[in-house]
Amino acid sequence: MTNKRVSIKDVAVRAGVSYQTVSKVLNGELRVSAATEARIADSVKELGYHPNHSARTLRTQRSQMIGYSWSSSETEQLNHIVHMFLTGVVSEAEAAGQHVLPFPYRDGDDQVAGYRELIDAGRVDGFVLSSVMYDDPRIAFLLERGFPFVAFGRSGPQDEFPYVDVDGAAGMRLATEHLIVHGHRRIGVLAWGPATRVGDDRLSGYVQALQAAGLPTDPNLVARRESDFESGYAATECWLSLPPDQRPTAVVAMSDLTAIGAMHAAQAAGLTVGRDFAVAGFDDVPLAQYLQPPLTSVRQPIRQAGHLCVDLLVAILSGLPVAERHILLQPELVIRASTHGA
Amino acid sequence: MTNKRVSIKDVAVRAGVSYQTVSKVLNGELRVSAATEARIADSVKELGYHPNHSARTLRTQRSQMIGYSWSSSETEQLNHIVHMFLTGVVSEAEAAGQHVLPFPYRDGDDQVAGYRELIDAGRVDGFVLSSVMYDDPRIAFLLERGFPFVAFGRSGPQDEFPYVDVDGAAGMRLATEHLIVHGHRRIGVLAWGPATRVGDDRLSGYVQALQAAGLPTDPNLVARRESDFESGYAATECWLSLPPDQRPTAVVAMSDLTAIGAMHAAQAAGLTVGRDFAVAGFDDVPLAQYLQPPLTSVRQPIRQAGHLCVDLLVAILSGLPVAERHILLQPELVIRASTHGA
Repeated sequence: MTNKRVSIKDVAVRAGVSYQTVSKVLNGELRVSAATEARIADSVKELGYHPNHSARTLRTQRSQMIGYSWSSSETEQLNHIVHMFLTGVVSEAEAAGQHVLPFPYRDGDDQVAGYRELIDAGRVDGFVLSSVMYDDPRIAFLLERGFPFVAFGRSGPQDEFPYVDVDGAAGMRLATEHLIVHGHRRIGVLAWGPATRVGDDRLSGYVQALQAAGLPTDPNLVARRESDFESGYAATECWLSLPPDQRPTAVVAMSDLTAIGAMHAAQAAGLTVGRDFAVAGFDDVPLAQYLQPPLTSVRQPIRQAGHLCVDLLVAILSGLPVAERHILLQPELVIRASTHGA
Repeated sequence: MTNKRVSIKDVAVRAGVSYQTVSKVLNGELRVSAATEARIADSVKELGYHPNHSARTLRTQRSQMIGYSWSSSETEQLNHIVHMFLTGVVSEAEAAGQHVLPFPYRDGDDQVAGYRELIDAGRVDGFVLSSVMYDDPRIAFLLERGFPFVAFGRSGPQDEFPYVDVDGAAGMRLATEHLIVHGHRRIGVLAWGPATRVGDDRLSGYVQALQAAGLPTDPNLVARRESDFESGYAATECWLSLPPDQRPTAVVAMSDLTAIGAMHAAQAAGLTVGRDFAVAGFDDVPLAQYLQPPLTSVRQPIRQAGHLCVDLLVAILSGLPVAERHILLQPELVIRASTHGA
């Protein structure tokens, strides 16, 4: 075998017809006799001819590429979520005859530059967006350009653009309800400091669960901090120093990392997590099941979200009728000993 | 702004010259007066003209794309390594004016199909390979086709193809030496069952460290199992049931997940890990520092490996002289309380 590419001319020579005939037959622009068609098909197969992608792109003005960029500012713990989403996007793109073009995510002012360059160079037909924020400049840019995209995540309260999201409020509601069912009445929440669409959604689920159970929302039990181990530790340490009647008996966290901080703080205070104090997290990071005790956590259908983003984008690009442009997936609660221990 | 692409004809109209003139000037094939050149340059800038990528590809016969496929059979715990490598590849490709084309990894007989299709369709200029195995069929295929690639990892004992690898033997040597320095003489090793280049390399580092310290290699202390929690737990449980003079006082594992299994088995046997029994892992998974006790582990420079794979491939594709086609990176040992506790 050699590296030389088989051309349409090679096929024409082997089939004993002209270059133009092969080209038109392969493109469905010309009908020939069954015998000629069979000779061309045999030649294509015998020579292993594949249409050249770049030539095809020029003809159809389609790159068959989907641009995708991910934020690398995520914590290491969340890399597995970013990776599962990407794996879902890549496998579904393959199934749809598309390819993914990943490009570096840029923070700050320059955020749309990568998108603009790919559009202007004609390299992609559409984008899948993730790490979507309130007033996301990428969304404003793509809407202005009228360029096709699907967002993983919502941006504002009334998004018109096509998106797939996981219902974060439902996830926090599940975790909080689970704690209420197990008798907890004072439940601290480890929330995120800055206002983000994802964070505000999750926090609203906590509030909804308390309200549905007729429990008050105590502002002292809402800690808005960074999403790291230290913040979870410090907030829980602070709560455990409150007088007994004000102290929470359980914590629900918007990330597993802050939940792990809460577990360590409770253990440092001499409590047995799962028995004296309950902790629930969010994301179900890979090692959550091997912590001591294993951590109850909310698991999102991330791979499925990747699949659906591609399906939706491909349908939009094909001009097919799209039944549902706004898809909200339901997370599940994985119950382990940190909320339910011996 | 509209979605319509600015064409070379628009530039020609604005500059008041012919289409052919603009095309030749932009391609450096024609010299014109300074005034004309300035008019063309101004028009390009004012209209925001970008050369169409597909047209450029046809001219240069270069796709500016690097194919990359990753195995999703890795455990969830290792996703962060796969992801860090990919992030390194994508960011360095961008820096080199290339793009990455990710495609699904196929196990089994069909393993080369994805590679063949991308070559035949002219979609990529070269590949970065990872999850390289002994007698890897992808490497045999690419060598036969004479198609450029760089492997992350070695395949056989005497690889001639370009590769970047992390010195796994050195990593295990570091971990084993660390245990020896802390007084351990009987050290169990949790190795992988099937013979793999990566696994055999790592195991050899363990043997080298024992030999350098004049310690015997006891076959009973070498457990070749699956790379999961249960295998680490079972092997350690078995070792701890040996008579005191045959029992190991420490375990070094070829993955963090088996190391965590070993920690749990030691704790179930009533031992305090870090004081009564030492455990070291490999990979430094994101939560290793939050385990109780925090896990000593070998950390690999994965992102750097991704950068170097791209740099090496781009140099090969450019026909530049390549000083070193075989790059071996050194891992580091991150020492925590599981081997060094209070």
